[in-house]
Amino acid sequence: MARVYNFSAGPATLPETVLRQAQAEMLDWNGVGASIVELSHRGAEFMGVAAQAEADLRRLLSVPDDYAVLFMAGGATTQQALLALNFAAPGQTADYVVSGHWGKTAIRQVKPYVDVHVAADGEPGGFRHIPPREAWSLSEGAAYVHITANETIHGVEYRGTPQVDTAPLFADFSSSIASEPVDVSRYGLIYAGAQKNLGPVGISVVIVRRELLQRAGQPRADIFTYASHAARDSMLNTPPTWNWYLLGLTVKWMLDEGGVEEFARRNAAKSALVYGAIDASGGFYRNEVAPAARSRMNIPFFLPDDTLTARFVGESKAAGLLALKGHKSVGGLRASLYNALPLEGAQALVDFMRDFQQRNG
Amino acid sequence: MARVYNFSAGPATLPETVLRQAQAEMLDWNGVGASIVELSHRGAEFMGVAAQAEADLRRLLSVPDDYAVLFMAGGATTQQALLALNFAAPGQTADYVVSGHWGKTAIRQVKPYVDVHVAADGEPGGFRHIPPREAWSLSEGAAYVHITANETIHGVEYRGTPQVDTAPLFADFSSSIASEPVDVSRYGLIYAGAQKNLGPVGISVVIVRRELLQRAGQPRADIFTYASHAARDSMLNTPPTWNWYLLGLTVKWMLDEGGVEEFARRNAAKSALVYGAIDASGGFYRNEVAPAARSRMNIPFFLPDDTLTARFVGESKAAGLLALKGHKSVGGLRASLYNALPLEGAQALVDFMRDFQQRNG
Repeated sequence: MARVYNFSAGPATLPETVLRQAQAEMLDWNGVGASIVELSHRGAEFMGVAAQAEADLRRLLSVPDDYAVLFMAGGATTQQALLALNFAAPGQTADYVVSGHWGKTAIRQVKPYVDVHVAADGEPGGFRHIPPREAWSLSEGAAYVHITANETIHGVEYRGTPQVDTAPLFADFSSSIASEPVDVSRYGLIYAGAQKNLGPVGISVVIVRRELLQRAGQPRADIFTYASHAARDSMLNTPPTWNWYLLGLTVKWMLDEGGVEEFARRNAAKSALVYGAIDASGGFYRNEVAPAARSRMNIPFFLPDDTLTARFVGESKAAGLLALKGHKSVGGLRASLYNALPLEGAQALVDFMRDFQQRNG
Repeated sequence: MARVYNFSAGPATLPETVLRQAQAEMLDWNGVGASIVELSHRGAEFMGVAAQAEADLRRLLSVPDDYAVLFMAGGATTQQALLALNFAAPGQTADYVVSGHWGKTAIRQVKPYVDVHVAADGEPGGFRHIPPREAWSLSEGAAYVHITANETIHGVEYRGTPQVDTAPLFADFSSSIASEPVDVSRYGLIYAGAQKNLGPVGISVVIVRRELLQRAGQPRADIFTYASHAARDSMLNTPPTWNWYLLGLTVKWMLDEGGVEEFARRNAAKSALVYGAIDASGGFYRNEVAPAARSRMNIPFFLPDDTLTARFVGESKAAGLLALKGHKSVGGLRASLYNALPLEGAQALVDFMRDFQQRNG
């Protein structure tokens, strides 16, 4: 069938031009007579692809020179464990601000390695706010302070970077990286699984201030050591080359479209459309997040009952609006509006929402 | 240009039919209006792809029911570290038989976690033999015994499974999995990066006797725990879905072609062709591995001098024979003859070798 509008929270929609290029090159990349997925990671061809992807990502995100950019296999959960192994002494305190499901996951991964201090917790408030900075209780001597820039399930997002002076600020940007300009220098480390805004699943990006790589951390395998990956330009072992290639195509597409400033405008427009439809529905659609904390990337919303929810999921899919079912832990509906989802997709969703309400409200 | 014969050691050549199917489905998988790389791993579509890949792999390798099959992001090096974390108590002895570069790598990853005992070492013999079983000095109470079934760089391969009674036998099968029938029940655990015989880079397979998953191992993050991955059908976090999908297509292709018995015949024929050309060259081409240990997958070979080697690499590439340069650590040339390399590829290489010798011998 024709391409649909895909609201999946991740793995998520990709730019059609990127998929078309990957399709055209699938059997023969750049005239070498083989697919990029069949080429050695040590050969000049892939090394060029990898270096260009890093250069483009540095440009897209305005990464300062004193930060390393790593491309690593797997998802953000692995990085969550590696943070403690690389940057905290055994049993040292690390501060975590919990604003949703993924903040809790980050804690679960490091519990064997550090003394977790929850500096603030949004759970008593149902994860409808970002815990206000002035209410955080940061520790003396913490290895780092960890936040989740955007919560994919609960739909809450930091607007702006909190000021932290006690320790380097580490942030999970999996579901909002490259969605707007960010001052990287305010962070010690930013990590993100690529499968929302940066491209395909199976690869993660870590942006880390180089001086932090000198920390001893704790005993660990070389493959778990960021400094080793940095020293080998993310080719300590065979990297996920095809995923890296597709990430590179996606980053280049974002640059060609106008960069993060342009995507900030588009994402503001898309999310304003959907929140506007929710707020104008007279309570038929509900989003429970405090307006100041509403995510531009992931919008969970609810109908009056489960029968309507199931009907909405089925009818929207039939109308070419894919993956609007909410996460199983919170139920309801969810629209993810990542960079590759066009404004027309958000408009089509809003049109459908109004029509659905007229027929069922 | 036309598709070439690709002798890369990995990432390596894939079946053209697999690439053509991935190409055809790149923008629209199975009529859903989105690529498989854009679909949620929790949706029915990808869950079906994942389950079919596991069922097909179990059939291809005749995996007994009391073994779990895990699909995990990244390569074999990560698994090497996880072996110790999951199956050895802190500081417990683990026996390693070193038959080449990758056996040494396996040790480097576990040194922080276990007391490594080198039960046998092929390095004094230049890695030209598999250390004979009767000469291994296995430990009392070892957590496991580790071997490397095929050494990609040194070109030595076990022919048959060594009998080990002291502890479960763990084997790195990255570069020879599915190349011939193997009795999985003789192993406690088999692991392999997929990028040689199983499909694309960026995903690894672990086949492990379920009872071993009850071992306590040592303190570690949940994401590093095999039992957690097994309990969640390898969806503890977002898996590398596209890589898993391409692995599934490759495994199905192997079944369609006749399974591991058929590939054992093809691989014997291909490697016999190349070793035959080397041995018939009167010393112009040299392979230094003892005949009983010669790998069917990776054939390192040498010319009389570096000038000829460079000429061979350049002229063979121009003739449509890709990636014959040897690994930098040993130099010379290397031909990798994985399952997806057709007999015609090996024949074309042998024809080129004879012609090159006539012109330069």
